[in-house]
Amino acid sequence: MTSDHILTLTCNDRPGIVHAVTGGLLDVGGNIVENAQFTDPGSNTFCMRTVVETDLEDSGEVASAVAARLREAPLRDLGASLRVRPASHRPRLLIMVSKHDHCLADLLYRWRNGLLPVEISVIVSNHPDCAGVAERYDVPYHHLPVGEDPSGPASKPTQEARLMELAEQHGIELVVLARYMQILSDDLCAELAGRAINIHHSFLPGFKGARPYHQAHERGVKLVGATAHFVTADLDEGPIIEQDVARVTHAHTASQLVELGQDTERLVLSRAVRAWAEDRVLLVGDRTVVFP
Amino acid sequence: MTSDHILTLTCNDRPGIVHAVTGGLLDVGGNIVENAQFTDPGSNTFCMRTVVETDLEDSGEVASAVAARLREAPLRDLGASLRVRPASHRPRLLIMVSKHDHCLADLLYRWRNGLLPVEISVIVSNHPDCAGVAERYDVPYHHLPVGEDPSGPASKPTQEARLMELAEQHGIELVVLARYMQILSDDLCAELAGRAINIHHSFLPGFKGARPYHQAHERGVKLVGATAHFVTADLDEGPIIEQDVARVTHAHTASQLVELGQDTERLVLSRAVRAWAEDRVLLVGDRTVVFP
Amino acid sequence: MTSDHILTLTCNDRPGIVHAVTGGLLDVGGNIVENAQFTDPGSNTFCMRTVVETDLEDSGEVASAVAARLREAPLRDLGASLRVRPASHRPRLLIMVSKHDHCLADLLYRWRNGLLPVEISVIVSNHPDCAGVAERYDVPYHHLPVGEDPSGPASKPTQEARLMELAEQHGIELVVLARYMQILSDDLCAELAGRAINIHHSFLPGFKGARPYHQAHERGVKLVGATAHFVTADLDEGPIIEQDVARVTHAHTASQLVELGQDTERLVLSRAVRAWAEDRVLLVGDRTVVFP
Amino acid sequence: MTSDHILTLTCNDRPGIVHAVTGGLLDVGGNIVENAQFTDPGSNTFCMRTVVETDLEDSGEVASAVAARLREAPLRDLGASLRVRPASHRPRLLIMVSKHDHCLADLLYRWRNGLLPVEISVIVSNHPDCAGVAERYDVPYHHLPVGEDPSGPASKPTQEARLMELAEQHGIELVVLARYMQILSDDLCAELAGRAINIHHSFLPGFKGARPYHQAHERGVKLVGATAHFVTADLDEGPIIEQDVARVTHAHTASQLVELGQDTERLVLSRAVRAWAEDRVLLVGDRTVVFP
Repeated sequence: MTSDHILTLTCNDRPGIVHAVTGGLLDVGGNIVENAQFTDPGSNTFCMRTVVETDLEDSGEVASAVAARLREAPLRDLGASLRVRPASHRPRLLIMVSKHDHCLADLLYRWRNGLLPVEISVIVSNHPDCAGVAERYDVPYHHLPVGEDPSGPASKPTQEARLMELAEQHGIELVVLARYMQILSDDLCAELAGRAINIHHSFLPGFKGARPYHQAHERGVKLVGATAHFVTADLDEGPIIEQDVARVTHAHTASQLVELGQDTERLVLSRAVRAWAEDRVLLVGDRTVVFP
Repeated sequence: MTSDHILTLTCNDRPGIVHAVTGGLLDVGGNIVENAQFTDPGSNTFCMRTVVETDLEDSGEVASAVAARLREAPLRDLGASLRVRPASHRPRLLIMVSKHDHCLADLLYRWRNGLLPVEISVIVSNHPDCAGVAERYDVPYHHLPVGEDPSGPASKPTQEARLMELAEQHGIELVVLARYMQILSDDLCAELAGRAINIHHSFLPGFKGARPYHQAHERGVKLVGATAHFVTADLDEGPIIEQDVARVTHAHTASQLVELGQDTERLVLSRAVRAWAEDRVLLVGDRTVVFP
Repeated sequence: MTSDHILTLTCNDRPGIVHAVTGGLLDVGGNIVENAQFTDPGSNTFCMRTVVETDLEDSGEVASAVAARLREAPLRDLGASLRVRPASHRPRLLIMVSKHDHCLADLLYRWRNGLLPVEISVIVSNHPDCAGVAERYDVPYHHLPVGEDPSGPASKPTQEARLMELAEQHGIELVVLARYMQILSDDLCAELAGRAINIHHSFLPGFKGARPYHQAHERGVKLVGATAHFVTADLDEGPIIEQDVARVTHAHTASQLVELGQDTERLVLSRAVRAWAEDRVLLVGDRTVVFP
Repeated sequence: MTSDHILTLTCNDRPGIVHAVTGGLLDVGGNIVENAQFTDPGSNTFCMRTVVETDLEDSGEVASAVAARLREAPLRDLGASLRVRPASHRPRLLIMVSKHDHCLADLLYRWRNGLLPVEISVIVSNHPDCAGVAERYDVPYHHLPVGEDPSGPASKPTQEARLMELAEQHGIELVVLARYMQILSDDLCAELAGRAINIHHSFLPGFKGARPYHQAHERGVKLVGATAHFVTADLDEGPIIEQDVARVTHAHTASQLVELGQDTERLVLSRAVRAWAEDRVLLVGDRTVVFP
């Protein structure tokens, strides 16, 4: 009986790191199934993702063996961020949505059919519209409206506090904004750093902000796109995880762009969520390393 | 012995236009080989491109027959812009280039191999670097540097005056900026309106301005693109004719993006030039209609 | 109050057809909203699709006006196949499926969200597996197994007879094989000619027959595809309506190709069904004309 | 002063290989710049490509250090195929061509502009047509026709003998069939195994054999493609290195497919040659591993 574990490591680059990590893995009888590395030349940051098969069931023991090797000279003080977790672990998701349900429905479908290695635990919306979709998949749906009155019962701080309560209660590891049309507060963005993914319905950095398909139509572009990125306080500026485009012509109206773009949005978001759930997405400064 | 003619028409939309045009074409014994239409709903502009086969060799006679039908009630006052020209006509091109020759070399190759229905008459550059490429294809190459001194012999007004002399001398119909890194004066842009195409090495409107691949690398995008557009005084804002993208990853350096993007640039520019040369590109306000 | 109608016409090509058709449309006060034409040079077949806006509600009257013009000399004997129908008409669909529900679920989702101008009337399967999906969308689901015994109660002739009963009962206009893994009899193929669309999970004509992703993996291709085509007695040889591909690498297992390919399959099938439902697909011999 | 070396390794998979290789590289003070691995599950073949930076200039010394580690228990008998070469080495190419020069011209352009890390040493053709292109780039061009007469001076055995003489004389490492329309003999295919790349102008395995664009047009496909593959005695069946496609419609004639496909062919072939020249292409049975 063997178990698979996923190891991710980011640290300052120096000769000997791969040898040390693979040495640690050999110490626990590990066999490397997948391995990917990248060193960012600008910041000299070493990034690594390894899938290892071993008799050990406990990811902590694997991590300890690797960490021990990384503590040996001359590899000390690498500022290593090391993580090992069972490959079979499925991160728990909270999905946020407003009125458009195409991304939500797509994520639910993939999850239910074993195509997305996650657990969709709870759905939160500022509108009641998508409750039916949630119900079909037996996922709890919380309608948390956001009102104008900053001291009212639906003020943004109150709503976000309730959101975080739900996240804690469900042990949420990733928040997915699946066409959620409210801006998160700076505090919430900071709290969710690296753990919240948004889908923007344009090929960023083109067409930031509201109604991107209408902007794209106005500008007469020949391709429209979608971008999945980490949520940061700087709206539409977070590190990009995945992008794709679809070809359009002068004959498409703005509302046809909206329809057509939905296929790209749901593909792009599901690819980004999957990559994150498989620990393929590492952060180096404001950019991502996405191991294929 | 029959001749093919290409007819293009833009006017206000009203019932009966297609019937009138096809009536005019029947009057000269024409058989429609290709036909494409589009009405822009915003401006109610009707656009049409027709390839017609007839015994008449003179495009002027075909145009007269169609114009006569369009003058009949109730189609007067359409503000029609009608043009008919022999399908065999190859528009004369002036290509402008700076130091990077990949787009220039591609246009020359396609032209020489019968893949681009144009006549490349003359090449102008603010640098001497691409003279060798021009020479291989026996096309005159004029080195017209642009100096800093506004009253010097290489001032921009002087250089542009020389450029327009060359254009007149060669009967130029289209100016192609094939990675020409100087900004044209507003006057020249106005004079060349609808007759000058630029290739921008990004997926506009993202990464306007200088060093777009370096901007793209900085931003961590997952696709890089290129955009062919009409030149206007508003830099990088002219009507878009064609765009395409190529997939990139975190592992590409900025200079690898430059290399990789060149394939996209030359494809996009050659498609735009070809579409223009075949009269497939019509202008409706700030946007193009590009008939496939 | 005006109505939109979609006119489609195929006939032998001859000068004057467009003029005659547009004349007929003017006779009923029609304004052309969209128009596309193509003449197949091999067979000299003229194809046309026009969307016209008029005060007439009855498509039959529009057709009569056009037909009258087409009967005038010199256009007689064109072998014209003319059809006019209300643009608002939504064709009624019968979907066939086996065990994989990704295409079915996608079609249902698009239909329910107004993204597919059809009416999904009934679902037929040789397996019970997809009943739950059908139920979620309140569409009747008929489990019609196909047994081995040619004289048994589930023989293919019996099953197909039951299928055609259901089609008649529901006034079905299009049959969609959304990953239905049984071969239809030659008789049924003939009866459904031009009215049945299949999705094949490869880039035809590569990898015909069973388990195409496994064939593709074995062959080591770098792209996998999907093909929507009309059903004919000649398996996997029917006229192609739409195709697309996705990039893969050596690292994808055969079962990962299956997963990855599903996104392409559902996109390709939904595009083909939409094109058919909007009367954009015309047949010329063994090939399709698909107006964009 | 440091040197970069490219190491490639294929062998049976077993725990400890990466550790041994990286140990060997540490023994010579190497720092890993790039690393990619893959284990083919079917054949249990381990594949690795590593770029390492070290003070040693001699690739042989690097190889020895790694080989020594791989000889230690328990890694003996891996059937290892290990190769280390200077990253700066540019493999010498012989290009074969018939009449179509688009792939040849593209390879020459990229080579001359530093976009292809190879040395194009000599061009061989069975026709005189492309001599002009070769001359422009100052590359020797040998016209070696193939006659019908099996005992004549231009028989295939004689021509191939002359070809191999040229290859030996120029120290050729890779033969590129850039639209060479003659079939190589089985003996020559065997001799060049893994060192000859062909471009086939279809998306294999669809449309094997002659005139693939005409076959594609006949079949009415909606995408046309190109495939770069290793040459084997089994025509059009060699291991695939790279593929891509372009979208087409019913309106494209067979000869337009030919034109349009040329852009795909030259992109696909240049990508394959570049990947080979950078030692990114490994062979596992009949399939390739292409490290990105």
